[in-house]
Amino acid sequence: MPAGRVATVTPVSEEAATGKVATIFADIKSTKNIVFVPNLWRVLATNPDHLELVWTRLKAIMHPEAAGRVAKLEPMTREIIALAVSATNGCEYCVNSHTAALRKLGMDVETLGEVLAVVGLFNSTNALADAYQIEPDILPPVE
Amino acid sequence: MPAGRVATVTPVSEEAATGKVATIFADIKSTKNIVFVPNLWRVLATNPDHLELVWTRLKAIMHPEAAGRVAKLEPMTREIIALAVSATNGCEYCVNSHTAALRKLGMDVETLGEVLAVVGLFNSTNALADAYQIEPDILPPVE
Amino acid sequence: MPAGRVATVTPVSEEAATGKVATIFADIKSTKNIVFVPNLWRVLATNPDHLELVWTRLKAIMHPEAAGRVAKLEPMTREIIALAVSATNGCEYCVNSHTAALRKLGMDVETLGEVLAVVGLFNSTNALADAYQIEPDILPPVE
Amino acid sequence: MPAGRVATVTPVSEEAATGKVATIFADIKSTKNIVFVPNLWRVLATNPDHLELVWTRLKAIMHPEAAGRVAKLEPMTREIIALAVSATNGCEYCVNSHTAALRKLGMDVETLGEVLAVVGLFNSTNALADAYQIEPDILPPVE
Amino acid sequence: MPAGRVATVTPVSEEAATGKVATIFADIKSTKNIVFVPNLWRVLATNPDHLELVWTRLKAIMHPEAAGRVAKLEPMTREIIALAVSATNGCEYCVNSHTAALRKLGMDVETLGEVLAVVGLFNSTNALADAYQIEPDILPPVE
Amino acid sequence: MPAGRVATVTPVSEEAATGKVATIFADIKSTKNIVFVPNLWRVLATNPDHLELVWTRLKAIMHPEAAGRVAKLEPMTREIIALAVSATNGCEYCVNSHTAALRKLGMDVETLGEVLAVVGLFNSTNALADAYQIEPDILPPVE
Repeated sequence: MPAGRVATVTPVSEEAATGKVATIFADIKSTKNIVFVPNLWRVLATNPDHLELVWTRLKAIMHPEAAGRVAKLEPMTREIIALAVSATNGCEYCVNSHTAALRKLGMDVETLGEVLAVVGLFNSTNALADAYQIEPDILPPVE
Repeated sequence: MPAGRVATVTPVSEEAATGKVATIFADIKSTKNIVFVPNLWRVLATNPDHLELVWTRLKAIMHPEAAGRVAKLEPMTREIIALAVSATNGCEYCVNSHTAALRKLGMDVETLGEVLAVVGLFNSTNALADAYQIEPDILPPVE
Repeated sequence: MPAGRVATVTPVSEEAATGKVATIFADIKSTKNIVFVPNLWRVLATNPDHLELVWTRLKAIMHPEAAGRVAKLEPMTREIIALAVSATNGCEYCVNSHTAALRKLGMDVETLGEVLAVVGLFNSTNALADAYQIEPDILPPVE
Repeated sequence: MPAGRVATVTPVSEEAATGKVATIFADIKSTKNIVFVPNLWRVLATNPDHLELVWTRLKAIMHPEAAGRVAKLEPMTREIIALAVSATNGCEYCVNSHTAALRKLGMDVETLGEVLAVVGLFNSTNALADAYQIEPDILPPVE
Repeated sequence: MPAGRVATVTPVSEEAATGKVATIFADIKSTKNIVFVPNLWRVLATNPDHLELVWTRLKAIMHPEAAGRVAKLEPMTREIIALAVSATNGCEYCVNSHTAALRKLGMDVETLGEVLAVVGLFNSTNALADAYQIEPDILPPVE
Repeated sequence: MPAGRVATVTPVSEEAATGKVATIFADIKSTKNIVFVPNLWRVLATNPDHLELVWTRLKAIMHPEAAGRVAKLEPMTREIIALAVSATNGCEYCVNSHTAALRKLGMDVETLGEVLAVVGLFNSTNALADAYQIEPDILPPVE
């Protein structure tokens, strides 16, 4: 029987993490209030500098309160954007991750369906607008 | 000097619209409370059945109140999803259209920047998750 | 051993379907002349309004005879387009579904190879045209 | 006023073409029965080996009769696939080019609308299938 | 338990290959210095003409020395480009294949992380440039 | 005559920049050794926190020497990856920007053609591998 996907590099386990990686792993669990380090971060840890760059940026954008910044968007809205992007790109890991995050924030499957109805609709009209090379209606910026 | 893009078919003008197309053009202006028919609909009108299918669906999803349905998402959230999808697909017409819609709903450029920060972030992590073929953390569904 | 993909929501089973969902499930099986409801529709059924919107549109476009409309394209041509889009997007479910539909319509693997040769060719030239930002040859519309 | 797109390299003009490039330019005009060399080929000619590779392959797939091969698909079907791929990728040059080819083969704008209705539909369901990570219905191959 | 992916057509086994297919299979193993024929080629062999077209082109571009051509890029650089494209497209088979090729050429996981950091970065800025429809800075070509 | 693209927000001019934005603008010009601030950064400056996040990350990855880090990749290789990603995504601004960077680093148009031959090739085989849902050959990781 064929097997599912396997990461192309060996993820760094929490036990094996030292130095900068261990510090970031602890910060991920603490900031996200979760008990394990998700696979994304364990894989990125194969290059600690890259792990740091991605985590620093994600933390600033998705956990602004942890960085002392006041965000203009709600956590739910941010995760909805994340799912819309991930669905449009067809990213398996990301769709699973952001759907789980939305469910954890309390979104029911019917509302999820409404989010994805909008995602499906505009993937369609995007293709149509490109297919006909439709000219923009109004020259931006509108200010 | 090189010219910008031109639609691959001649859009149907409001003056030339008759029958089903004229009815839908009127409904678009009324439902969206705008004074002109956007180019997308004028181009789709070259196949009236297709115009009807796309408009019926967009109206149901983006203007649920006009269809007597109670939506679970705010108009602002729906337009944010539309922009996230359009930016991810790189659709020129759609990015212009949905940015204009968000500005009309009152979004300032700084908040727009925050929306796009999330869009940019996850286009990056999507590529990374795919690049490493990272395995999902938890088997969904979580119910 | 790693497992394959699992939908992010629990699909609605045919047995559990009631009301609008049951009616649509029956229409899907009857219109498509199949004995089971494909997973796509069972998952969409978690939001019955969305199920209805997608099915109504797909039925009108892909089963025009059931809607009393005379189509200008052959069923085989429509499924070829569906596969070309799905392959370009890399959609696993959709590639499987539309390849199965083409085989059911009688397409042999050699002809499938010819379809995909065209798909592969233009995914290549699309990237090249974008990579060089090549200007269109003739300003449309050509009428 | 902002200008439209300009290729990132200077296209090779027909007058400046010599050797392999001149031979291929002549073959393109003869095989396609056109009086000028489209911009794609003039740009690719900045690397003559690449020009030859792309043209040889496109000629074999899109002009099989010129290569003494009997194709299983009609020219119209091949151009429909080309447009479906190009619309899905949002490639401006390619959408213009393949729409022009379809018009030249006699497709009217209403049939074009039907082709693009299918393209739009499946860009939507592709996003939905990916968004829910829907499992394939039947394990292929179906033989 | 759900299964992993299965190709939509039955791959041609090395034992069953005859004529043109057997010749190409032998050339693939010899040119690539490998002991088995990768699945991509075994699947393409279901249409021998297509197999020949793809292999001829890949050989010319990726194994120029076998075609008596002097390449301007190193093998490592070519595989890096292949991985960057495959990661951006989210192609599972291709990401696995090109990561394996890079590892075989001696790339360690830390350098792989640096390659993918660049891939991740520009998938992000690409989305941002499209999201804001940013105008090019300088009109090309710069010659 | 139709106009080219216009950014959806008003870019911040160098003259209008103050505080954090002015500091980053100066750092961009100094780090990149250029005499003007590219449009990407002027547009991102409409949200100064986002400008800072993107610039900090790009500087760390693309200008590691400015951050006191020893990179494993050459500047030319990094720009090649950037172009491969941008061409695959069809990002107009990014293709122009990274082609200009490669030309500035000394790449001639023939070598550019070789880079894009690889980009074109794998956009094709990516689509084919997805189109047939080809199973990976070897289970990674190979370590």
